[in-house]
Amino acid sequence: MSGDRLIYLPLGGAGEVGMNAYVYGYGPKGRERLILVDLGVTFPDMDGTPGVDLIMPDIAWLEARRDRLEAIFITHAHEDHLTGVAHLWSRLRAPVFARNFTARIAQRKMTEAGQPADQVQTVAPAPETVEAGPFAVQFLPVSHSLPEASAMLIETPAGRILHTGDFKLDLAPGVGEPFDEALYERLGKQGIKAMVCDSTNIFSLHPGRSESSLPMAITDLVRAAPGMVVATTFASNVARLRTLAQAGRTAGRSVCLLGRAMHNMVRTATEAGLLHDFPATITPEEAADLPREKVMLLVTGSQGERRAASAQLARGNYMGLSLKEGDLFLFSSMMIPGNERGILRVVNQLAEKGVDVVDNSSGAYHVSGHANRPDLERMHELLRPKMVIPMHGEHRHLREHARLVTARGIATAIAPNGTMLDLTGDVPGVAEKVETGRLYLDGSAIYGSQDGIVRDRIRMALNGLVLVTLIIDEDGAPLGDPWADCQGLPREGRSHKPLNEAIEDELATELERINRKTLDDDDKLIETLKRRVRQCCLDEIGKKPEVTVVVSRLAE
Amino acid sequence: MSGDRLIYLPLGGAGEVGMNAYVYGYGPKGRERLILVDLGVTFPDMDGTPGVDLIMPDIAWLEARRDRLEAIFITHAHEDHLTGVAHLWSRLRAPVFARNFTARIAQRKMTEAGQPADQVQTVAPAPETVEAGPFAVQFLPVSHSLPEASAMLIETPAGRILHTGDFKLDLAPGVGEPFDEALYERLGKQGIKAMVCDSTNIFSLHPGRSESSLPMAITDLVRAAPGMVVATTFASNVARLRTLAQAGRTAGRSVCLLGRAMHNMVRTATEAGLLHDFPATITPEEAADLPREKVMLLVTGSQGERRAASAQLARGNYMGLSLKEGDLFLFSSMMIPGNERGILRVVNQLAEKGVDVVDNSSGAYHVSGHANRPDLERMHELLRPKMVIPMHGEHRHLREHARLVTARGIATAIAPNGTMLDLTGDVPGVAEKVETGRLYLDGSAIYGSQDGIVRDRIRMALNGLVLVTLIIDEDGAPLGDPWADCQGLPREGRSHKPLNEAIEDELATELERINRKTLDDDDKLIETLKRRVRQCCLDEIGKKPEVTVVVSRLAE
Repeated sequence: MSGDRLIYLPLGGAGEVGMNAYVYGYGPKGRERLILVDLGVTFPDMDGTPGVDLIMPDIAWLEARRDRLEAIFITHAHEDHLTGVAHLWSRLRAPVFARNFTARIAQRKMTEAGQPADQVQTVAPAPETVEAGPFAVQFLPVSHSLPEASAMLIETPAGRILHTGDFKLDLAPGVGEPFDEALYERLGKQGIKAMVCDSTNIFSLHPGRSESSLPMAITDLVRAAPGMVVATTFASNVARLRTLAQAGRTAGRSVCLLGRAMHNMVRTATEAGLLHDFPATITPEEAADLPREKVMLLVTGSQGERRAASAQLARGNYMGLSLKEGDLFLFSSMMIPGNERGILRVVNQLAEKGVDVVDNSSGAYHVSGHANRPDLERMHELLRPKMVIPMHGEHRHLREHARLVTARGIATAIAPNGTMLDLTGDVPGVAEKVETGRLYLDGSAIYGSQDGIVRDRIRMALNGLVLVTLIIDEDGAPLGDPWADCQGLPREGRSHKPLNEAIEDELATELERINRKTLDDDDKLIETLKRRVRQCCLDEIGKKPEVTVVVSRLAE
Repeated sequence: MSGDRLIYLPLGGAGEVGMNAYVYGYGPKGRERLILVDLGVTFPDMDGTPGVDLIMPDIAWLEARRDRLEAIFITHAHEDHLTGVAHLWSRLRAPVFARNFTARIAQRKMTEAGQPADQVQTVAPAPETVEAGPFAVQFLPVSHSLPEASAMLIETPAGRILHTGDFKLDLAPGVGEPFDEALYERLGKQGIKAMVCDSTNIFSLHPGRSESSLPMAITDLVRAAPGMVVATTFASNVARLRTLAQAGRTAGRSVCLLGRAMHNMVRTATEAGLLHDFPATITPEEAADLPREKVMLLVTGSQGERRAASAQLARGNYMGLSLKEGDLFLFSSMMIPGNERGILRVVNQLAEKGVDVVDNSSGAYHVSGHANRPDLERMHELLRPKMVIPMHGEHRHLREHARLVTARGIATAIAPNGTMLDLTGDVPGVAEKVETGRLYLDGSAIYGSQDGIVRDRIRMALNGLVLVTLIIDEDGAPLGDPWADCQGLPREGRSHKPLNEAIEDELATELERINRKTLDDDDKLIETLKRRVRQCCLDEIGKKPEVTVVVSRLAE
């Protein structure tokens, strides 16, 4: 092992919640054999990424070394761990391993993205083992907010790593395996070199609650409702769907699923053998024919997404169903920071219709899928690792987790995206800093966050755009007047002339006195006209827009 | 009084938090004399209002009746109650009345907007009375999160209205008058026809806490901090500034104000005689020369605003000051929904620097300025009004407030913006629905939210823009090839040609086979080229951009 080293390199997920991607490597420096754990996405917003469809980690470092990449492992089926595989697999071309439910979803996404679904291989939980170069990897069941979430037990010549993935300690998760304390305690006794650990809920100070704490309260709520009941949660939270559907059935209601993701997830979970006791569902047409108090809808859109079933029901109707006074809408979910506006839009539209909206502010109708601080401490105790590396979280989460670990006398390091740690010894050390970043999927194109494309969009959105066209004739003189078109700008300004006319007048005046040297030089001419347009707009409407000038020169 | 009626018409603030504007009228139907209480703004966001500076209520209804408008009253100096006056006063031209602190701020804003500051008149609290047509109006002190907040006691021939403005029940608010229960109880005994009441905190179930609950905890926190302490709150929360500054002084620290609003508010409050015991402050230069543990900064930017002092400190330095490991940053504030992303950006940047960030999740470092549910109930009890009209709140707030009031056996009505209520009788009735909306201030221009300007900006931001220019010669034939310019679009697509070249090639091909009829008709030609550009982009980059085509025809 002389000179071989064990490295850890987060490319995404460390310094943010979302787009997880963690590289492990073992071997001589610069020639390590590599594996990738998770390849997720994060979601765009109008603030920073208008028009973008998905945000993914920039995997350029790994792509350049893909001849050394042995395998990709996916811990679970959430978008922020899995969806990047479908869009970036062709850059890596390594086999993908996942458990049954996860693999089915990954295969569907690969197919939708035009990638070979058969590159995704299904692995049973431990003791089944995937040999990947110097690594022997097992999937260990953990509880989370969807089925078959797994920690990765990564055996290396330098010791064993437990990469938790997203997890919680739920002894009765409803669907999927309960958290198996004895298993992790056994592992701890066998010796764990490094625990690379979920940090997202480090600021939640109370012990996490079990999915099994919800059915009674939800059933009581549904039973007491006089009209139609609608409930929303993440479609991937199959245990919650089951809890909600069973509450509906117990309350004498027929259950109807609305939204593509709901159907997909229930079907996939059923096919994977995870949902044998899900109540039979009815169609929207059947639901519309039943008395309102006999219906329960399970709908997509817990985060207020504009196109989801919840938002469409809030605006008017969806698949022939609509809501009214006396109906109940349950958010069996939490607000993901940044989604508040969209969610509150839905809530207020429902309130306008007289619908009673119930959210989780009481804590009775939703539980988190992540380990809270006491649960993290319990996991540290069970595993007794030599070191804990906080992963999956914003900087504040990583820092707080590291602080907690340090206080417990365990070695740690804060390693945000791009920080390569050397885990070979007893204490983690920073080996290298690697360029990382974000890729944007936009339509069918993928480009870098630093490419300026989104910056240009934001500028147009903030400042509006003036487009000027000017023709220069064969003799080098302006042919006619310049023409201006305004986009996203007030129709008129201080002069009460239409803004484009004010600009055109200004430019015509400018051209009358412009010198030949400027007129002959495209760059100078364009710069002069741009400056004039900006000044004119500042005078007219008090702001400077983006300006594009097109000069067409007729051939001599 | 035969035929005279008392009306209430919210133009803003009822159905949203922000941009308050409430009209009251008394007289024969359609000829009522009018007053306006508050004229506030709300703040834009990238999601729905990119590039907009401020959002204001559309006051077209009132503008058309300004000959009947007697006066404008401003309850307090928050932007969502006052700032619209500066930008819309010229459309209303009625005298503005406010208390001392509020009037000073209104006058400054009027001056900055080029409006006559002397139209703002200072009124002392009750018993001073402003006679405004059929109304006699008094300012009654209430407690809130800034000085001299007032309820309006509006005496009318049909009875007395108490318009609460924003308020809380604070018996020891630090700066300004304590809440005077006896005063409101006395008013209740004298008879209140209608209480028009703040609804923003209806979902907060615990009694509100006093500003006086904070100094001890804040002082302990500041005293224990080993490095520099930075605290942020709304600059207008003068009592909090005093609490924070005194905590700093008690802990042996010199206090330095950072941010224009901090200086403005402290100066205005001092000039208004409200801040006699504010500690002397030091300059940023002096702060930089002191040991870190001797300094406390009070900074703007509690909502993560990009240009505020807090965000600049988080990014690097501000006025020569910068933060590092061991410093403490206190958010003595709450997150306004929608601002989470910006605030968390600041928190994470501070965490990266090793700064300890403390927010109000413990509840120890901030109290709300609004009455919680039990406080609202207490107010209902004190005043015993014949009816309660919920105002200032989103739909969900108004609805919940009305539900609470109904459960107490008091008459009520949900009246969102544009709903004119007739308050003449014992029960409120809907008199009329009035067109309302939003105005956008953008640079120096003001336009309507429905004018399509912002919609065009959002489309450019989501879809990118292709600009095509084509010259048609004197004979009606294309002169040279069309020219394409792309903004906010990927540089290249599936063909790996630069996108603009792919478009130009496509259009050149199109023009070769286009028929003369299309070529002669601008509309048809432009439509044909647009369609072609969109299809080409769909093929190349998987999305359809916005397209502008400019056809220049050389004169025959």
